[in-house]
Amino acid sequence: MSDKKQEEKQAGLETRNRILKAAEECFSRYGYDSTGVAEICKAAAVSKGALYHHFPSKQAIFVEMFETWMDGFAGQMERIRDQAESVPDALLRMVRMTGLIFQTATGQLPLFIEFLTKASRDPDTWKATIAPYKFFRDFFADLIRRGIKEGSLRKVDPELTSRIVVSFGAGLVMQGVFDPEGGHWVEVGAQGIQTFLKDIIKEVIE
Amino acid sequence: MSDKKQEEKQAGLETRNRILKAAEECFSRYGYDSTGVAEICKAAAVSKGALYHHFPSKQAIFVEMFETWMDGFAGQMERIRDQAESVPDALLRMVRMTGLIFQTATGQLPLFIEFLTKASRDPDTWKATIAPYKFFRDFFADLIRRGIKEGSLRKVDPELTSRIVVSFGAGLVMQGVFDPEGGHWVEVGAQGIQTFLKDIIKEVIE
Repeated sequence: MSDKKQEEKQAGLETRNRILKAAEECFSRYGYDSTGVAEICKAAAVSKGALYHHFPSKQAIFVEMFETWMDGFAGQMERIRDQAESVPDALLRMVRMTGLIFQTATGQLPLFIEFLTKASRDPDTWKATIAPYKFFRDFFADLIRRGIKEGSLRKVDPELTSRIVVSFGAGLVMQGVFDPEGGHWVEVGAQGIQTFLKDIIKEVIE
Repeated sequence: MSDKKQEEKQAGLETRNRILKAAEECFSRYGYDSTGVAEICKAAAVSKGALYHHFPSKQAIFVEMFETWMDGFAGQMERIRDQAESVPDALLRMVRMTGLIFQTATGQLPLFIEFLTKASRDPDTWKATIAPYKFFRDFFADLIRRGIKEGSLRKVDPELTSRIVVSFGAGLVMQGVFDPEGGHWVEVGAQGIQTFLKDIIKEVIE
């Protein structure tokens, strides 16, 4: 690629990120519905033409915001998996991360729910919304397969077992975000995973 | 109460139920936001005065719809509890009920999510929305206390343990409703509860 082209590409990425950041601020402050594309353009100091060059719609901006957030979270999970000594160790480390998710997610809750509303009436956006469930089901099924292979876990059904883990995790995050005062959620998470590990583990890891 | 007064009370209840039923139909058909009080009045064949005599707002109608639905669900859980032979038996019977919840909830999903949007921006409505979590946490804490008392469960912490059950149940219902094709959710539920029971049960019930 020529220097000129590379510069253009870099400038394009910067504009794209500026639009995403401006949209996030506008959505948080005014709500998703009450934010127009005009406001995002103003906050990002870009023309409408530039915005539509990068994103076909306001909805597309939100979907990308959501995907970026989920990618970051998935990346953290992958790092934990790769650093852990064993699969049971990885599961216990992951549950300690939930406290951080609660903090990040709580402020974004009204916005996220508002977006779910739109998504639930539009099949394509809905697919993006439920993609993380699928990702985490696959992620944990793979993790459980690794555990069986490394000899730390019994020969359980990876697909079924991952769905149990994701159900528990999703319900835990939901309650932690919807009702933070309702329990010591990180402790509930740790205890739940330990209970679960007792059943699927091959040997108790001290 | 005089016959006249009783008749009036009966008529009032009928009107109230007619409004609730009409509102449910309008909300499902047009969405919560796009349904005005005028449409509900028309569908229920009542005057605006009559509607406002029973409900202060459209939001209040939705909250009551939601509470009625949750009451029905809670009632079913209580019946299962009272008919079961033991607490472990009750837990296994309850999980078999989840299939029914998925069926009921799936059609109502867009409406429910739309309402969550409103609720998340209004503290009073939000309280009504998260009340079921609290109810089920108390319900399962009580159930676990019964299990300890009848000797079927170990002396686990009822509050912590109930939060594990509710997290798993809430995540299971959420996935079953959001992504029905993503797994055999009733089987995931049964397996998850069995895993969990193995840890908290005193003796294996054959």
